[in-house]
Amino acid sequence: DTVGLKVKRLMCCRYVSKAAVNTQADYDYDRPLMKTQVPGPRSKELTKQMGQIQNNTAINFFCNYEESRGNFLVDVDGNRMLDVYTQIASIPIGYNHPALLKVVSDPNNASAFVNRPALGILPPESFVDKLTEGLLTVAPKGLNRVQNMACGSCSNENAYKAMFIWYRVSTARLPHPGCPELSILSFSGAFHGRTMGCLATTHSKPIHKLDVPSFDWPIAPFPRLQYPLDEHVRENAQEEARCLEETEDLIVKWRHKGMPVAGVVIEPIQAEGGDNHASAAFFISLRKIASKHGCAFHVDEVQTGGGATGRFWAHEHWGAEDPADIVSFSKKLLTGGFFYRDEMETDKPYRIFNTWMGDPSKNLLLAEVLNVIRQENLLAEVTRTGKALLGGLYELQAKYPNLLSRARGQGTFCAIDVCKASVRDKLILQARDNGVILGGCGDLSIRFRPALIFKEHHVHMFLNVFSDLLAAHK
Amino acid sequence: DTVGLKVKRLMCCRYVSKAAVNTQADYDYDRPLMKTQVPGPRSKELTKQMGQIQNNTAINFFCNYEESRGNFLVDVDGNRMLDVYTQIASIPIGYNHPALLKVVSDPNNASAFVNRPALGILPPESFVDKLTEGLLTVAPKGLNRVQNMACGSCSNENAYKAMFIWYRVSTARLPHPGCPELSILSFSGAFHGRTMGCLATTHSKPIHKLDVPSFDWPIAPFPRLQYPLDEHVRENAQEEARCLEETEDLIVKWRHKGMPVAGVVIEPIQAEGGDNHASAAFFISLRKIASKHGCAFHVDEVQTGGGATGRFWAHEHWGAEDPADIVSFSKKLLTGGFFYRDEMETDKPYRIFNTWMGDPSKNLLLAEVLNVIRQENLLAEVTRTGKALLGGLYELQAKYPNLLSRARGQGTFCAIDVCKASVRDKLILQARDNGVILGGCGDLSIRFRPALIFKEHHVHMFLNVFSDLLAAHK
Repeated sequence: DTVGLKVKRLMCCRYVSKAAVNTQADYDYDRPLMKTQVPGPRSKELTKQMGQIQNNTAINFFCNYEESRGNFLVDVDGNRMLDVYTQIASIPIGYNHPALLKVVSDPNNASAFVNRPALGILPPESFVDKLTEGLLTVAPKGLNRVQNMACGSCSNENAYKAMFIWYRVSTARLPHPGCPELSILSFSGAFHGRTMGCLATTHSKPIHKLDVPSFDWPIAPFPRLQYPLDEHVRENAQEEARCLEETEDLIVKWRHKGMPVAGVVIEPIQAEGGDNHASAAFFISLRKIASKHGCAFHVDEVQTGGGATGRFWAHEHWGAEDPADIVSFSKKLLTGGFFYRDEMETDKPYRIFNTWMGDPSKNLLLAEVLNVIRQENLLAEVTRTGKALLGGLYELQAKYPNLLSRARGQGTFCAIDVCKASVRDKLILQARDNGVILGGCGDLSIRFRPALIFKEHHVHMFLNVFSDLLAAHK
Repeated sequence: DTVGLKVKRLMCCRYVSKAAVNTQADYDYDRPLMKTQVPGPRSKELTKQMGQIQNNTAINFFCNYEESRGNFLVDVDGNRMLDVYTQIASIPIGYNHPALLKVVSDPNNASAFVNRPALGILPPESFVDKLTEGLLTVAPKGLNRVQNMACGSCSNENAYKAMFIWYRVSTARLPHPGCPELSILSFSGAFHGRTMGCLATTHSKPIHKLDVPSFDWPIAPFPRLQYPLDEHVRENAQEEARCLEETEDLIVKWRHKGMPVAGVVIEPIQAEGGDNHASAAFFISLRKIASKHGCAFHVDEVQTGGGATGRFWAHEHWGAEDPADIVSFSKKLLTGGFFYRDEMETDKPYRIFNTWMGDPSKNLLLAEVLNVIRQENLLAEVTRTGKALLGGLYELQAKYPNLLSRARGQGTFCAIDVCKASVRDKLILQARDNGVILGGCGDLSIRFRPALIFKEHHVHMFLNVFSDLLAAHK
């Protein structure tokens, strides 16, 4: 099958220009290079060995990270693939970026990698500067404070705790002392993590929640919009109005139940749940409803944050003066954490706390990532690349209307739906065998999550492969 | 006050031998060196700056990790302190250990520090070997499998999920599908973390739980023993029998409530909750009760694991053939995670999962830590040092019976109680101003958590300072 496709590709018309020039810095490869199907024999052997140690059923293949460069991930069988998934959207500027290697090889930084402090009690001298030169330079509007954390789940867990504490302090802890019956309102299709607080707000797939006890918290409908958004303005506005109304009803209902909603949490684009978008007007109205009912508004940018939408934060697209009370992040920011409004500061020490509270070596690397983003003007590049990607997806779905639909995206944070889950899954595997790593999300979607250094010629590489697969699809 | 103490120390009889020779490798300092009170002016300035960014009220002082060595932590005002707290028990072999610096400076390892993979789907080629040469060499008896995680909280959260899934699979998911009403039984005084699942089992201090919704899960009494344990065998056995009986009653009661106990979680020594010990017989009986009622038995070794008790795991002191179903770890192991029995393996992919699932660069450092522990025979050293430490504490409490009581410990994992919380807190601050960093736990305890390279002469350094403070106490 793979060989057949390769032959076919040599013969058939290429989707777009073959003149994909390598404008990437010298550290990147220029094209995929496939030696075996994926996983190859070495990956299969290692996966089998891993099965002796832990559950190995989610492993795709084993990687040679030393040989990976820029947009290309190399596996242990010598296959080199264009990576449009980037470790579940968590590699900001590609593999082995020279600027990051320099940070690690600088002897002045060695201490940061071997002496992990308990950041909340004994921070390193440089930590205030690292936060000031790093995270605070990308602070969302109105959020002057930032709490470091280690990963996406603990960022959201602690953001929820901050909202509970804020809610209780702002209501003078009446009527009950202790652990009150409070709730977080989340949305159908949402993904906020897998620890038990986060999991209570995660609804992207039933398997995530199966067998694990949860809280009785309200779940509002996330709008199911029609794409392209600008061709369905009226119907989408109606759908969003319906969701907003139900959300407000749920807030009132849970207050009457005696489990008031302390915070509303939402992703600017639901990622894991299927790349579901909503309009700026929806988010701005939702934020107003939350404020009206005394609920904090938490925007979860764990997957959307870090530049892939063409703005550093996806919520910047809303153009809101006062977008959120809390914005959480992780993945492309290398460290986890959350930004928050002054009023959300906790009243006492050790309330938002754990041993490590992140890892300053990640802040060191992040500061360098942010420098590269600025120096190479990567947000503008992402916008340009994203236009090429979405344009290509529109053309493909026009050409294959029975296979593809609902192309959508912001920047390179794009997705397209495939007619059936089995076809979607097959296309992802075939693309991999042909040198392109893609990821799925939701029931039917392929999501595109390249690094910020993904350029137009990489878009063409992907489109060439994908186009051939679609042409060959029976 | 500090100056007064220093003068006094020069004049008065030293507690033990002054012949504290430096047997430590050349990278360690030989003694504390104090220039200011702690926090000094530079720490105060940085703490003030941090207050503009996040809650700064837990910060003790700012550190110069570059200048810190071995058992000595250097602060930003040039004070050098003997560290008997080690970042809340999380620095295994001291600051800037040459073996760890070598790992970071090795260009072959650079990739591991800059390309953080999604370990569950795309592990690095070396990862099976790293687990085999690292974590699996210290696998607890009967637990052949290990899951990597990033920190203590997510290790426990995922261990709880593994127990829920195991319980449900082993009961054929009857009678209910979906998110069942299940519970984890924990103990009064326990600390298992601060994310919402963990927090439901944490009971060390009310402030940890205040304002955060929780689950209605059973809390059994942890034995309140009298020390030294070998002088109160009969009373302690009665207390433990009482606690075991109540535990079994709670398991039955919660089953009748329709919220069966899927797992029992316990620390081998309750750390955060006040260094509470129990006998090997207690733990072995508890494990039997859990098995009898079909509950998994989870030993949380996040603080006790890694060698400080003189064994790699504190539960090894029980001498049990079949100590646990799950053992979780973090802190001194640099990575988080949990070991588990074959039967606890999950039935499907993506159930115990998150983006990063730890960080292979931590496994790289851990492998080196384990080498150093073996090469330098550090567990035997810890046992020797611990005897000197506990012996010194016994002598001090004999000399100051109105101030000190309940000296206790295993290896260097020791504690002593002070008559009043205010006196305890004052002694900790005074010790710091005199060059020794200590930590508190529970209501009245001082806990000792040195690195594994803490030697007898370091014990004497501490005892000298502490003895002077007690002599000077009014």
